[in-house]
Amino acid sequence: MNHKMILYILGYIMKVEAALMCLPLVVALLYRESSFLSFVITIALLLVLGTAASFKKPKNTVIYAREGFVIVALAWILLSVFGALPFVFSRSIPNFVDAFFETVSGFTTTGSTLLTDIEALPNGMLFWRSFTHWIGGMGVLVFVLAIVPLAEGRSMHLMRAEVPGPTVGKLVPRTKSTAMILYGIYIVLTIIEVIFLLFGGMSLFDSLIHAFSTAGTGGFSNRNSSVAYYNSAYIEGVITVFMILFGINFNLFYYILIRKASLAFKNEELHWYLGIIAVSIAIITFDIFPEYQSVGVSFRYASFQVASIITTTGFATTDYNLWPELSKSIIFVLTFLGACAGSTGGGLKTSRLILILKSIAKEIRHMLHPRSVTTIRLNGKSVDGQVLHGVSSYFMVYMVITFISFLLISVDELDFETTLTAVVTCINNVGPGLGLIGPVNNFSIFTPFSKLVLSLDMLIGRLEIFPIIMLFMPSLWKKK
Amino acid sequence: MNHKMILYILGYIMKVEAALMCLPLVVALLYRESSFLSFVITIALLLVLGTAASFKKPKNTVIYAREGFVIVALAWILLSVFGALPFVFSRSIPNFVDAFFETVSGFTTTGSTLLTDIEALPNGMLFWRSFTHWIGGMGVLVFVLAIVPLAEGRSMHLMRAEVPGPTVGKLVPRTKSTAMILYGIYIVLTIIEVIFLLFGGMSLFDSLIHAFSTAGTGGFSNRNSSVAYYNSAYIEGVITVFMILFGINFNLFYYILIRKASLAFKNEELHWYLGIIAVSIAIITFDIFPEYQSVGVSFRYASFQVASIITTTGFATTDYNLWPELSKSIIFVLTFLGACAGSTGGGLKTSRLILILKSIAKEIRHMLHPRSVTTIRLNGKSVDGQVLHGVSSYFMVYMVITFISFLLISVDELDFETTLTAVVTCINNVGPGLGLIGPVNNFSIFTPFSKLVLSLDMLIGRLEIFPIIMLFMPSLWKKK
Repeated sequence: MNHKMILYILGYIMKVEAALMCLPLVVALLYRESSFLSFVITIALLLVLGTAASFKKPKNTVIYAREGFVIVALAWILLSVFGALPFVFSRSIPNFVDAFFETVSGFTTTGSTLLTDIEALPNGMLFWRSFTHWIGGMGVLVFVLAIVPLAEGRSMHLMRAEVPGPTVGKLVPRTKSTAMILYGIYIVLTIIEVIFLLFGGMSLFDSLIHAFSTAGTGGFSNRNSSVAYYNSAYIEGVITVFMILFGINFNLFYYILIRKASLAFKNEELHWYLGIIAVSIAIITFDIFPEYQSVGVSFRYASFQVASIITTTGFATTDYNLWPELSKSIIFVLTFLGACAGSTGGGLKTSRLILILKSIAKEIRHMLHPRSVTTIRLNGKSVDGQVLHGVSSYFMVYMVITFISFLLISVDELDFETTLTAVVTCINNVGPGLGLIGPVNNFSIFTPFSKLVLSLDMLIGRLEIFPIIMLFMPSLWKKK
Repeated sequence: MNHKMILYILGYIMKVEAALMCLPLVVALLYRESSFLSFVITIALLLVLGTAASFKKPKNTVIYAREGFVIVALAWILLSVFGALPFVFSRSIPNFVDAFFETVSGFTTTGSTLLTDIEALPNGMLFWRSFTHWIGGMGVLVFVLAIVPLAEGRSMHLMRAEVPGPTVGKLVPRTKSTAMILYGIYIVLTIIEVIFLLFGGMSLFDSLIHAFSTAGTGGFSNRNSSVAYYNSAYIEGVITVFMILFGINFNLFYYILIRKASLAFKNEELHWYLGIIAVSIAIITFDIFPEYQSVGVSFRYASFQVASIITTTGFATTDYNLWPELSKSIIFVLTFLGACAGSTGGGLKTSRLILILKSIAKEIRHMLHPRSVTTIRLNGKSVDGQVLHGVSSYFMVYMVITFISFLLISVDELDFETTLTAVVTCINNVGPGLGLIGPVNNFSIFTPFSKLVLSLDMLIGRLEIFPIIMLFMPSLWKKK
């Protein structure tokens, strides 16, 4: 383990967080909020510690997959610990565990909140809260890689550990260029959404907040009633479309940019993703029709909520806890599925679902015709056995962690529905669940212990399990 | 596909069912119940159809794995269809779908019931109901193989399709002998349990009923309040011990018989199985202590319920729906786990859990030390890659079916807890669930459609998924 390099990169990331925190500081100053001081203190702290840690670049800059995992895991924990400080200092969320939960929920783009009165927070804090979604959506290390040549040549290890999905490839030979392209697309799409929202009569501040949350597929709003506050079909439509867009693999946008649009439109994961969305919307529209007595209204609520859950954003325009059981069950299953690999969305990812279903089909075919040889194909290309093995391992460990977390959380003595969906919504980075943690409720009902377990689940979900698990492996920390 | 051989064996199995049904017929006659006629009619029907189907032994008796799966799946469906008839004819369960559900629940050793007043049934019907547990526990085809040389040399395909667990081996070279040994152990253990129960003051009839249900890890009782009716620590203790015994791989009993006890006691799956039981009992005893204010009583309820659920029996001595959430959550997770491979218990099986956890550990080790080569061992022997692959495929398809069934059942508009645990308890062949289908409730609340879905889930769980799924594959039915 290259400890010096780990420390160096972590120090660098702290300085980056300090830089990013200047944005909410400016917002706080513009609104003349006294809470700007809490940003100043945190930024100072980050700069001092970050500079100390990254003072001298180590001679040996070689890092391997192992270091990549450790750096990513520790970076995300550090970002959340320091990101929580402004909330604590400003007394917006006085308790540190609560502030940590909220910040982890922000960076991991989960969007589960502990706040009972969101609108009571100063604007600077609300800005920072949603901005963490935007930072976490594309990834902090991807951001760092886009601006500095850290360990060039080896930095793919960092990116692979942070970008979700079973396969991560470079778009272009250099990691730095790949990271820059991804961030470029991300920024442009975010700006377009802001413009669309402004056009709908939303204030600039609210537009930024909601664009950040949509882009990161996070779900934090600055309104207590989330997007329902605006009661505008236009705004809901814009957010629905952008949620679906941000749930698509960013590589496809790149293909369109380089005029290979046909490659994008032929993408198998995209077809499944849009197909699942369409079928879910159709069934829910039909199922909730008796409640609203209008196809238009039913469709509006159904499409917003389906997009919000499958992309793991978690915005709400209505309390789907009151919907019929079938619609709630679809919401529950969508909570697991998640968006496309290589998007900002969480969950299991559509491509993993496809590979799981194809593996099952192959298994059955093999039982019927033992001598037949079949390969699994995705987008016309045969899928490597290693990737398939990775997907099944991933799925197994993901379910095991869900069960263990469920047992740990159930000590809180909340009902079955609340307990189970809390874990599921956190590990899949969705946000709201069913029961007592539905879209109009919040997570303040949990004990500090459960909040920490759920925070860990959010990190596990966002970083796709292994980096966080590895931190707990004793053999990782042994000297050679 | 050797259609003639499939028909021949199915005809044979119908005759076997006719023979087995003579036992409840005798019981009905002994109790001078008019319902004996419904057995007579069913037996006549089975004999006529069975004889017609198996009239001529085909020249080509060769069957492959494919035929094995089809025979097993169709055999279990036929057994359930005809097994349901006495209930319908006697008006004990007048509706056919209900009677089918109850019979599938019997043969698959699930033990979920639709009956609101069990004690209202005639004794002959109660006997048949629990006897299906006993037949289904060890397997119908294993029974057939124990008495007749059907397709000897190829009959392992039949046994492998019916006996649960990731690996099924012959104990002795000949399949017939293996089947005889298994049934021998099964019968002897059942008789011993009957004797123990008689000693506790239970009537012979009740002892037989409860021994059948324990042996098959089914859970049907002839008492409305299940085992709680007897309110006897002795009887509960006996049943607890025998539930745990019938959840152990029968090969281990064989090892003891041939004086290789050390092989049995060193068995890794056994250690995990007993370990999980011990830990679960300890936690639940502690958790429910405030409710009962006595360590003894808490331990008595906890141990009975843990044994009942992990072995997938489903007897109840108390309404664990009223327990604290942690205990209910443990019950929920145990519902998935199931007993040991090669036992009469259902669920995922302890050995699959072990292999899943070891695969995960291997995966993490591999990520930390990419060049290290590690093999997964069970009982000191390295596990074949094919077996590991089979376990992960099994787990994935099992979860996918659980989710799909959950969506289908949720159309009934029952609450989340009830809907989810109904599917989980049926696919794992446990019996009761949480919510409205807890140990003191029943499954009569579901619509006929949901009852059929749950029946299919029970069959899928008992036959370990693939035989039943294959029936739905068009390519299976194509002529070469």
